[in-house]
Amino acid sequence: MRPITVRGTPLAGGTLPAVCVPLVGRTRDALLREATDAASLGPDLLEWRVDHFTAIVDIDAVVATARDIKAAAPGLPLLYTRRAQHEGGQATALHDDQLVPLYAAVCERGGVDLVDTEASGDPAQVAAICEAAHAAGCTLVLSFHDFQRTPALGELLERYRDSYRLGADVAKVAVMPQGTGDVLTLLQATWMASEELPIPVAGMAMGALGAVSRVCGGEFGSALTFAAGRAASAPGQLPLGPLRAALAVLHGSVLRR
Amino acid sequence: MRPITVRGTPLAGGTLPAVCVPLVGRTRDALLREATDAASLGPDLLEWRVDHFTAIVDIDAVVATARDIKAAAPGLPLLYTRRAQHEGGQATALHDDQLVPLYAAVCERGGVDLVDTEASGDPAQVAAICEAAHAAGCTLVLSFHDFQRTPALGELLERYRDSYRLGADVAKVAVMPQGTGDVLTLLQATWMASEELPIPVAGMAMGALGAVSRVCGGEFGSALTFAAGRAASAPGQLPLGPLRAALAVLHGSVLRR
Repeated sequence: MRPITVRGTPLAGGTLPAVCVPLVGRTRDALLREATDAASLGPDLLEWRVDHFTAIVDIDAVVATARDIKAAAPGLPLLYTRRAQHEGGQATALHDDQLVPLYAAVCERGGVDLVDTEASGDPAQVAAICEAAHAAGCTLVLSFHDFQRTPALGELLERYRDSYRLGADVAKVAVMPQGTGDVLTLLQATWMASEELPIPVAGMAMGALGAVSRVCGGEFGSALTFAAGRAASAPGQLPLGPLRAALAVLHGSVLRR
Repeated sequence: MRPITVRGTPLAGGTLPAVCVPLVGRTRDALLREATDAASLGPDLLEWRVDHFTAIVDIDAVVATARDIKAAAPGLPLLYTRRAQHEGGQATALHDDQLVPLYAAVCERGGVDLVDTEASGDPAQVAAICEAAHAAGCTLVLSFHDFQRTPALGELLERYRDSYRLGADVAKVAVMPQGTGDVLTLLQATWMASEELPIPVAGMAMGALGAVSRVCGGEFGSALTFAAGRAASAPGQLPLGPLRAALAVLHGSVLRR
């Protein structure tokens, strides 16, 4: 597993997949409570899913809230994500031409450390978000989600490659398995991408059927796994405590290698 | 996952892979201490690896020791295994023509509940062991081991099918991965065999690299996993406590399905 690096430092000591707790509060106050709670669980980073935030169209409010979340969870890297609705995000009032200015402001003034956007987005927007992220020293995650099904192995590998070609520092793929064979397909694609690409990759199968991938993904090259804090942001996320315990068991075996 | 049934009762409540602790003592006294210790850890069954037993050529001593192990671990099913040297077992003084009489005696008089022998053994011997096991109401595991490498997917699937064709109640495959891709191959073959065959299957990749398969195998159809007690009988076996903890995390997600 190639670890995710944030401002020059590998997450989770560079040896375990990083555990990220998503924040899905609708208001600043709810988010700050959620961030404080989540930080107390000991994750490696937090993700602010800003598409849940009611004031998303107010750039200054978003920037200030990003800074407040950072202050509420001192020392924890913050991943900022506006998940598009067609890849599983919430419907928002954000106008299409506000997307890049919002990402740029949060990178420049919000103190966030990583940003995630969909690789399938408008190419000019993806390029602009990439540029804004890198100018601010942020780690760029380009992601692909399918909440309905699991594409074939070759297609999943192409999605990982797409993210790399577009300038990602981390290539992420999340799919919905229809059966256990799909979970194996996701793990296989993640493993192949981790061997092929020079950047860290993150792969997860969603839902209860895919929960095993959130525990074992690191053994198959995935550098990132999401755990539920107060709320899950996608189906199948396990609570952080038990996930950590299971990772420690696998990590114990890693240490003996 | 199709659970292993012993004397009409599914192991591990029928919902989790059964956790088996191997006993590898060389003497009766060592085995009884090992069995008492192992039973206190809460496994679902014990395996006596009789090829480690110095008195293996003495049928009466073997039968008596099997009964003593059962008494030392009351209520725990006992799997009796003479692992052949060419599939990873110890060298013993047992003569080839003593093998079937030993299995038959242990089934009839030793009180064991399951027996394991290699599917690759002499066909007449495998058939005789099968008959002796079934006559005594024992569950028959037919197994395949490769301590050097991981055969290709199609070959692994054939090994599972061989065991079924030969009359196994449980088909077991254990391989040594040379890389993470081999672990995925083992999991894929195990999953396909569990879908295709009407009997429970057990698949494991050995060594530190394969340890993940001992934790997650149940999600891919494997009904049995081995954990180390005082000693491991194959490389990569995790201690029972941490393995149970990790299985409980995965099981939690299973319950939510």
